[in-house]
Amino acid sequence: MKPIVGVVGLGIMGQPMARNLLKAGYPVIACNRTRSRMACLTDMGAEAACSPAEVARKAEIIITMVSDTPDVKQVILGEEGVAAGACEQSVVIDMSTISPSTTREISRILADRGIAMLDAPVSGGEKGAIEGTLSIMAGGPEEVFRRCLPVFQAMGKNIVYMGESGSGQIAKLCNQAACSLTILSVAEALILGARAGLDLEALLKAISGGAAGSWSMSNLGPKIIDGNFAPGFMVDLHQKDLRLVLQAAGEFGVSLPGTALVHQLFNAVQRRCDGGRLGNQALILALEDLAGVEARRR
Amino acid sequence: MKPIVGVVGLGIMGQPMARNLLKAGYPVIACNRTRSRMACLTDMGAEAACSPAEVARKAEIIITMVSDTPDVKQVILGEEGVAAGACEQSVVIDMSTISPSTTREISRILADRGIAMLDAPVSGGEKGAIEGTLSIMAGGPEEVFRRCLPVFQAMGKNIVYMGESGSGQIAKLCNQAACSLTILSVAEALILGARAGLDLEALLKAISGGAAGSWSMSNLGPKIIDGNFAPGFMVDLHQKDLRLVLQAAGEFGVSLPGTALVHQLFNAVQRRCDGGRLGNQALILALEDLAGVEARRR
Repeated sequence: MKPIVGVVGLGIMGQPMARNLLKAGYPVIACNRTRSRMACLTDMGAEAACSPAEVARKAEIIITMVSDTPDVKQVILGEEGVAAGACEQSVVIDMSTISPSTTREISRILADRGIAMLDAPVSGGEKGAIEGTLSIMAGGPEEVFRRCLPVFQAMGKNIVYMGESGSGQIAKLCNQAACSLTILSVAEALILGARAGLDLEALLKAISGGAAGSWSMSNLGPKIIDGNFAPGFMVDLHQKDLRLVLQAAGEFGVSLPGTALVHQLFNAVQRRCDGGRLGNQALILALEDLAGVEARRR
Repeated sequence: MKPIVGVVGLGIMGQPMARNLLKAGYPVIACNRTRSRMACLTDMGAEAACSPAEVARKAEIIITMVSDTPDVKQVILGEEGVAAGACEQSVVIDMSTISPSTTREISRILADRGIAMLDAPVSGGEKGAIEGTLSIMAGGPEEVFRRCLPVFQAMGKNIVYMGESGSGQIAKLCNQAACSLTILSVAEALILGARAGLDLEALLKAISGGAAGSWSMSNLGPKIIDGNFAPGFMVDLHQKDLRLVLQAAGEFGVSLPGTALVHQLFNAVQRRCDGGRLGNQALILALEDLAGVEARRR
């Protein structure tokens, strides 16, 4: 019989991930700060819990999927948190994107109580969560990872074991650093082309397929020239992740000048009215301000 | 009958491009500063000329493929240059990567003599030149472009008309700006991962397929972690192109902070013994110096 899986945090990512667990035949018990987001899950047969502690008392595997480092500390170690309800058989899987060093700290505290923890942040956004095609980067004890693999497979496609506790979070931060710079690469190409009067659709056609090509160019480039700034991934969340990247860079003693530059340029996007709630392709707006031209389809 | 095509410049790119013209059935007449590079073409039936002027006297379409802006000025407008031999039916196609504003200047001088010119820089490197799969970005009069399309098709696959004279060069500079930043994106992800002790092969596997993915990550990432710095595209040539990008940014009044950063980091690679002759994936060396760690497979 499949183990009961608990899900703490039913946001834009957590809810579709829980749905995919139900579809794969896992009994799910869930809780969320905002109770209204439970309805669509209980309709599918999930059980509602009042607190992370109650989730942990009833589930063998407890997934946390919340916004930031303090939220994870709160739902795991806080009053009525996961740790208050977990036992020695429990596995806690934090799939949020948070600080690798805090991850190790939480993992050590749980280990002292005999509770195993994996960090398994994801990439692929809401679309990947809904379609069950997330990339999952996991850190923690390898045998625990192996045991949880079928659970990951219900939610994702490209599932990679990265090593000891915190390694999944570091891989995710590497991912966020890299995609910041691919967005900047698209933005700089488009702003130069726009200022020089090029047909931007022709430009994307000319350069997307070669050495300058990227996921960002193929997926965000067309949105930029259409003036479509609806969020696939929000600037505010990208900035939260870049703060984690740059904090980790400081802790490890590594210089990431390009990522730091993108972080600064996103500040200029965030200062605009509701700029932080735009998709991260809105990085172009900072370069548009500097160049005095819009990078739009003509 | 197919028109005679002249090729001026038989370097790492020009020679395979001329071979593909011969294979497609075009009569080719060529010249090169270093005469020894003619042999393999004359073996295939090409005619050797003594000067660009002689090439232009005998060919209807004259392709120039040389290193930099002054070289193009020299082979087209210099003594015994293409312009000295061309007539009113001639079409000059410069496929080098040079300054868009100089391109327009040369094009105007040729137009005054009734000679048509296209700028048609390429991307895809030596591999694309050999396989006839270059991306070609063309600027100049559209009807001249249409007439020359079969010639381009003998050398490339993704052939895009970008607009008036100089537009092809601008598109190429946009391409070079974008790929500088995708290389930086790979380098920053790998240096953070390396410093934090990740398995870099697992890291590339985890992040290549998602939103951080790029041609550079898939093609240069594995070379970096293997310590393979053989040039696909040399740092010295990339720096030449970035100088053109930043010069164009100055002329058009557009800020490209990321491209400028990569240009500065490449300076640190060039100062090393023979650093400029490494492949552009050697950008990682600058970040390795800063972090005091090598981003290599363990």
